[in-house]
Amino acid sequence: MTERIREFLRVRRERGIDEGPVLVVDLEVVRDNYTAFAKALPDTRVFYAVKANPAPEVLSLLAGLGSCFDTASVAEIEMALAAGATPDRISYGNTIKKERDIARAFALGIRLFAVDCKAEVEKIARVAPGSRVFCRILSDCVGAEWPLSRKFGCEPGMAVDVLEHGLKLGLEPYGVSFHVGSQQRNQHAWDRALASAAAVFRECGERGMNLSMVNLGGGFPTKYLKNVPTVKTYGNAIFKALRKHFGNRIPETIIEPGRGMVGNAGIIETEVVLVSKKSEEDDVRWVYLDIGKFGGLAETMDESIRYPIRTTRDGDAMTPCVLAGPTCDSADVLYEKTPYPLPVSLEIGDKLLIEGTGAYTTTYSAVAFNGFEPLKSYHI
Amino acid sequence: MTERIREFLRVRRERGIDEGPVLVVDLEVVRDNYTAFAKALPDTRVFYAVKANPAPEVLSLLAGLGSCFDTASVAEIEMALAAGATPDRISYGNTIKKERDIARAFALGIRLFAVDCKAEVEKIARVAPGSRVFCRILSDCVGAEWPLSRKFGCEPGMAVDVLEHGLKLGLEPYGVSFHVGSQQRNQHAWDRALASAAAVFRECGERGMNLSMVNLGGGFPTKYLKNVPTVKTYGNAIFKALRKHFGNRIPETIIEPGRGMVGNAGIIETEVVLVSKKSEEDDVRWVYLDIGKFGGLAETMDESIRYPIRTTRDGDAMTPCVLAGPTCDSADVLYEKTPYPLPVSLEIGDKLLIEGTGAYTTTYSAVAFNGFEPLKSYHI
Repeated sequence: MTERIREFLRVRRERGIDEGPVLVVDLEVVRDNYTAFAKALPDTRVFYAVKANPAPEVLSLLAGLGSCFDTASVAEIEMALAAGATPDRISYGNTIKKERDIARAFALGIRLFAVDCKAEVEKIARVAPGSRVFCRILSDCVGAEWPLSRKFGCEPGMAVDVLEHGLKLGLEPYGVSFHVGSQQRNQHAWDRALASAAAVFRECGERGMNLSMVNLGGGFPTKYLKNVPTVKTYGNAIFKALRKHFGNRIPETIIEPGRGMVGNAGIIETEVVLVSKKSEEDDVRWVYLDIGKFGGLAETMDESIRYPIRTTRDGDAMTPCVLAGPTCDSADVLYEKTPYPLPVSLEIGDKLLIEGTGAYTTTYSAVAFNGFEPLKSYHI
Repeated sequence: MTERIREFLRVRRERGIDEGPVLVVDLEVVRDNYTAFAKALPDTRVFYAVKANPAPEVLSLLAGLGSCFDTASVAEIEMALAAGATPDRISYGNTIKKERDIARAFALGIRLFAVDCKAEVEKIARVAPGSRVFCRILSDCVGAEWPLSRKFGCEPGMAVDVLEHGLKLGLEPYGVSFHVGSQQRNQHAWDRALASAAAVFRECGERGMNLSMVNLGGGFPTKYLKNVPTVKTYGNAIFKALRKHFGNRIPETIIEPGRGMVGNAGIIETEVVLVSKKSEEDDVRWVYLDIGKFGGLAETMDESIRYPIRTTRDGDAMTPCVLAGPTCDSADVLYEKTPYPLPVSLEIGDKLLIEGTGAYTTTYSAVAFNGFEPLKSYHI
C-alpha cells in the first residue's frame, strides 16, 4: 500500500463514489520496478509483457522509460505503438498466431516473432518475409507458484530443426526463448533452462546458424504472502548462469517481466457483502466479497495465487474463513481448501484491500458475468 | 446443429465476415425447450436462470412465452424488466446481495428474495419490508457434471431458524430452495433434496409457519457427448418425489433451468490457429483454437464440461489431441488430462463447430484478455 493509493481511496470514499470493487495502480511503483530491472540486468533489454496490465498509462510510462514490449496479439501491438513504442521495440511473443494477424503485425512494422514449430515458421515466412524468429523451448517450472503447462515451446532438440526451417524459408534464426514459470520464487530456476538454451545455440552453430539472442522470459515474482528474492538477486543468479553456460560469449538477452513489473503496484479495494455460517456448529465462516474469480481474481484458480488481504480490523483475533465472490456461480470461490484467516470482528460492509493485484486482473475480468460489471481501474 | 444456424454461418462465410469465433443461438430451439419444460412439469412455474444467457433476444422470447426469471443481480433484474417481464415474475435468487442492491430491487418492484442466513434476512427486512423469502438449503450433488460447492445454502436445520427470523422481522417465510448440481444427469437426484425440503416444511409448520413453495432449482442438463434423460423423464421423477415426500399436500413449485433452456440452442464456430507437436516422437498433437478458456469456454475448467466438436473432416482417422486456446496464458488449455480425439487430417484454418455452447459462454468471456475481443454472438 502506498501513500498515493491510500489518498486516492480516501478521496473516493469522501465523495461517496466508492461502490463496487476497484483496482488502483500506483505508477510510481511501476517506475521503480522498471528501474530495478534495468539496474539488476544492465545488459538485458526489458520487454514488458503487455498482457499483465495493458492500461495506456502503464504502457506510456514504460515506453517513455525506454522499455520494449512483448505482445500477445495485434491489439496489444497497436496499444504499444499508441503508447509511443517504435515497431523495433515490439516482439510478437505469442507462439499461436493466425496468419492474417502475422501479416497485420508485419504491416505495422513488427519484425520479431516467437515460434515453437515448423507450421508457425511457414506462416511467418509467407507473410512476414525476412523477419527474425526465436524458438521457444520447453522448460520445467519447479519452484513456480503458477507453473506453466506444456502449452508453449518444443523440446530443445526440435528447436534446432524449427530454426533451420526458418533459415531455409528466408527468415533470420534469431534466438531461443523459454519461461521458467510465473511467480518463480527460485532465482536458480534459470540455470537449467539456460543449459538447454546453450545446447540449442551450439547445435545451431554446428549447422551454420549463429543465434544472437536468449529471451529469458518472465517469471519474476511479486510479493504476495511469502517473501521473494529481490530483482537484484535474480539478476546476479541469471548473470552467473549465463557465464556458466555461454562462457565469454554471452548472447544478447531480453527479459519479459509482467507480474514483476506491475503486480505490487496495484491494490484492489473490495467490500464484504456477507459473512455467514452453513450451520451453527461450523468453525469456518464464509466471507463473500464483491469481487471474485470472474471479476478479476482469475489467478485464484486452484488457489494458486494467494493475495495478501488487509482489513481495518487487523490485529483482532483471527478465524479461518472461506472466501468467495458475489456471483451465483459455485466455482466463484477464492480460497476454500486452505481457508483464509480474517478478523473475527469482520462485518458486512467492511472494505478490504487485496494487495499485489496490479497484474492479471483487469483484462481477466468477465464482460458481464451474472450481470456484474468488469473491474474498474485507475492508474495514478 | 440446426438448419437455421448452418445457413447463418454459410452466409457469413460467403460475405467474408467469418473471422474470429462466434456463437450462434437458434431461438427456435429455446422456444422448444421452454415448451418441453412447461409440458413436463405443468404445475411448476419456470424461472429462467438469466445468467446462463442474458441476451435480450432470449429474454424477450421467454417473457413472451410466459416465463418467469431467476436473477443474480440488479442488472439482470433490469434486463428481465426490459424484456417485458413484470416484477412479480422475477426472483432475486442470489443469496449474496448488497443491502443497497436489495433496496434497488425492491424499488423496481421485486418481492421475492433468496436467503441462506440470518444476516441476509436482516438486510431484506430493513430495505424490502414485507417481502417473501425462501431459504436455500445445502444438498449433495452426486451425479452432476458441474457439482456445486457449499457456497450457497445452509444446513436444513438452520433454514428453519433463518425463516423464523424473517417472520419475526416482518417478512413472509415463503419456501425452500436447493440445487442438485449443474448438468445433473441423474433424474433421481431431486428425491433426496426433496426429503430435506419436506423436513423443513414440517419443522416450520410446527413453529407456526406454513411455507408455500419449493424451488427445485436448475441442474437440468444439456446434451454434450453423453446422452441425457429427456425433460419429461425429469418431470416424472420430480413429480414422484414430490408425492413421496409431500403426500397430497404438494406445494407450489418452481424450476430454474438455465443450461437446460439454452445450452443445446447454441453453436460456437472457431478456427484452428495451429496444429503442432512438442517433439517428433510425441503421439499427442496440440491443436490451438481461436477460442479458449478466457474467451467463453470457462466451463472447461478442470475439464468439467466436455463439448461435442464437429469438423468438416469427421469420418477420417482420429488421433488424440490436446486442445488449447489462443492466448499466452498457460492455463488456457481446454482438454489435456483427457485428450480430445480429432481427425488426423485436421489443418490450420479449418473451422470447427463446438456444440451445446448456448449457456455460460458469452458473459463468462473476458473483457480483453491478451488483447483478444470477447466472444461475439448472434441470436437468430
